[in-house]
Amino acid sequence: MFKKIGAVALSTGLVLSAVSVPVFADKPESPGKGKGNGYGGKKIDNIIYMIPDGFSGDYASNYRVYKGEDAVWDEHLKGMFTTNSANADVTDSAAAGTAMASGVKTNNGVIGLDPEGNELTTILDASEEAGKSSGLVATSTITHATPASFATNVESRNNQTEIARQYISGEVDVLLGGGQNMFLPETEGGNQEELNLIEEAQESGFTYTETRDELLDSTDIDVEEGEKLLGLFAEEALSPELHRDQTVEPSLAEMTEVSIEVLEQDKDGFFLMVEGSQIDWAGHANDAAWAMSDVAAFEDAVEAAIDFAEQDGKTLVIVAGDHDTGGMTTGSGAYAGLNADILNQVTATGDFIATQLNEDRSNTKEIVEEYTNLTITEDEVQSIQDASDAVLAINRVVSDHAGIGWTSTNHTGADIPVYAYGPQSEKFVGFYDNTDLPKIMANALRVNLKN
Amino acid sequence: MFKKIGAVALSTGLVLSAVSVPVFADKPESPGKGKGNGYGGKKIDNIIYMIPDGFSGDYASNYRVYKGEDAVWDEHLKGMFTTNSANADVTDSAAAGTAMASGVKTNNGVIGLDPEGNELTTILDASEEAGKSSGLVATSTITHATPASFATNVESRNNQTEIARQYISGEVDVLLGGGQNMFLPETEGGNQEELNLIEEAQESGFTYTETRDELLDSTDIDVEEGEKLLGLFAEEALSPELHRDQTVEPSLAEMTEVSIEVLEQDKDGFFLMVEGSQIDWAGHANDAAWAMSDVAAFEDAVEAAIDFAEQDGKTLVIVAGDHDTGGMTTGSGAYAGLNADILNQVTATGDFIATQLNEDRSNTKEIVEEYTNLTITEDEVQSIQDASDAVLAINRVVSDHAGIGWTSTNHTGADIPVYAYGPQSEKFVGFYDNTDLPKIMANALRVNLKN
Repeated sequence: MFKKIGAVALSTGLVLSAVSVPVFADKPESPGKGKGNGYGGKKIDNIIYMIPDGFSGDYASNYRVYKGEDAVWDEHLKGMFTTNSANADVTDSAAAGTAMASGVKTNNGVIGLDPEGNELTTILDASEEAGKSSGLVATSTITHATPASFATNVESRNNQTEIARQYISGEVDVLLGGGQNMFLPETEGGNQEELNLIEEAQESGFTYTETRDELLDSTDIDVEEGEKLLGLFAEEALSPELHRDQTVEPSLAEMTEVSIEVLEQDKDGFFLMVEGSQIDWAGHANDAAWAMSDVAAFEDAVEAAIDFAEQDGKTLVIVAGDHDTGGMTTGSGAYAGLNADILNQVTATGDFIATQLNEDRSNTKEIVEEYTNLTITEDEVQSIQDASDAVLAINRVVSDHAGIGWTSTNHTGADIPVYAYGPQSEKFVGFYDNTDLPKIMANALRVNLKN
Repeated sequence: MFKKIGAVALSTGLVLSAVSVPVFADKPESPGKGKGNGYGGKKIDNIIYMIPDGFSGDYASNYRVYKGEDAVWDEHLKGMFTTNSANADVTDSAAAGTAMASGVKTNNGVIGLDPEGNELTTILDASEEAGKSSGLVATSTITHATPASFATNVESRNNQTEIARQYISGEVDVLLGGGQNMFLPETEGGNQEELNLIEEAQESGFTYTETRDELLDSTDIDVEEGEKLLGLFAEEALSPELHRDQTVEPSLAEMTEVSIEVLEQDKDGFFLMVEGSQIDWAGHANDAAWAMSDVAAFEDAVEAAIDFAEQDGKTLVIVAGDHDTGGMTTGSGAYAGLNADILNQVTATGDFIATQLNEDRSNTKEIVEEYTNLTITEDEVQSIQDASDAVLAINRVVSDHAGIGWTSTNHTGADIPVYAYGPQSEKFVGFYDNTDLPKIMANALRVNLKN
């Protein structure tokens, strides 16, 4: 593509480089509804990779109804990508995380290894090798599949203690999430004292925090001096956002903000991955209220990342789910219209609501209405009382009211939207495979992914 | 964004318009998996607007499995857009067509009028006003909601005879699809002779064709001389692609090719809208085999359009569904994996298969297996025998085998992908509303949409 400009006849022989004149060349159209996309400079020092686990296009459209306006990412839509793993049409989070971290497809369940078992270099590894700092943040155990894919190499995602061990002896500077028990594994005799990876982490330079307050006081970690930060705020996963106010846990946005504050001290820049882990779990349970409230918590974290990127000017923020979970649709046959906004009234997950039912479920109507603030029909009450799985039955009733459909309790193979903000974000425009994402990032960050 | 080039000092006072010098400005990155997107010149004369009715992102991902490779549009993905109508979260095809033709939202059911009843200008009207020729092609009746939205103004989409009348007295040069009966409406006495809009069309300059052979012989229509082409190849809608070989109907690709051949005679350029109408009907019926085979027929038409655009160099091709139908998902709980490729073996629509069942449906297994080439279980046979709606039950069984989920027999509110090929196709990059599409087209075509 070229642009003709009026210019002097070349035959005059004048030297054409004496003065620089700005020529307004093909400015990308302001993409869509957005007011701007942080274009303006090409060089980037930092990448913040935001992964809402299980989030597909239908989560985006339902979330817009839930919120009542566009989400912060909508205006930054760039493209879509495919997600199949090396051995399955429908990926799991380990193979998806490995592809999105290393650019190589592997088998479901495998982390940081190719199908032949060879160790892979990730965009985090490449960033560290270029002298940058790095961090991983999640609302699952920090040793769960997605964060683990960026910094460890294990044959099975289930081996979370091995993942913890590799973290501690590895290069990641900031680790924030759940999973104390993965660092304090019970040995066969039930004794937690024999292996204490939290102590080992402290011995190898990590400051350890266990509560929101401790975390917010930890921003003086000096990564340039080799100091590191480990925050484990629950024995297992963190709480769903719907129940976090009953805990001492930080929000995903707070973990993101502290991570950025610590990592931005590194003059060489940083790589940070932040996962909204439980959107996927909500999808498996077909729990629309849990899904939307955890998307909202994730959006707060994305806003924190974009706020930083906007000021910094050398940070690229990418938002990309790893796969769809549940076959969510924006509308269903049950009630007319899109009503995801009613989910704002729901105060508990289906998991929790089911625990409040008595043995014969005779209190179903009263309990479900108490926690959902919906009026449910006698047929709906009956469907919950008769169900083999009360949690799923409750969640289906709530989803019906919200106009949200589901076709599965597993992942699906839907293409996933990718959003990007900041310099070089336009590189994500188009149709991609999940393995392309870290390659584009490595190219933008001028680091070597090797694989 | 701007680009600095070396240039002479302006103070020399030289006139800067003597010679045009090409300046290579910011060329968009090759987007995604594609090898090229037909960039290369800015000026366009023609637009071909391809609308697969009911086609969402999950149709795209399932179709890729059905086909076994990327569809022709995948590499041309540019963005996504929202679809709500003026009075509903979930649009119908009339309000969607009106928005996509005129850039103005209206109420469901309304064609070419805003919610207050004011007549709207469409991208087709604006093209005609700029001296271009125009055409409409569909596999439904040509008087159906989507094509009608481009050239008529009626309060109810159901008034197809009024739509036919407006076509004939209007400006469209090529009209190809089904719907003889809409042009030969029965009066109250059952007499078809009283109103014959086909004759009226012929009197006002249309050449009339009724079969594939007649159509293929009609490429000598001279639109510059005011000649027009009307092709109505069935009394009602055309056949589903699965059954077209038993008819005298042209394919959607053939109708597209003839339209282009006729319209490209106009030195001022042309606007052509081509609808894959029945993808939507397949979605309403949750008929995955009908959906995929009609997407394949639509893809052939898109290939014809892109082939022309590639040679012509001044044609912009846009592919955009108007809404999702059925809440289709790429995977479901029924069987593992994505198996849409098995739909290639299905030889009839669910509608047709159901007509072959005997009264007590005792021949269900034999008939369904004959037309689907699947082996179905006893539970599946039972589900069809017990169903109040045998068609839907057959289609659900076939979809289960294909790994395709559905959550509705109506439209949903999913965001819809937009694909574009040719000069200025990059203008569709980003997140849009359906009303933005004709505005971008008008801008690219340098015509005045007015509304």
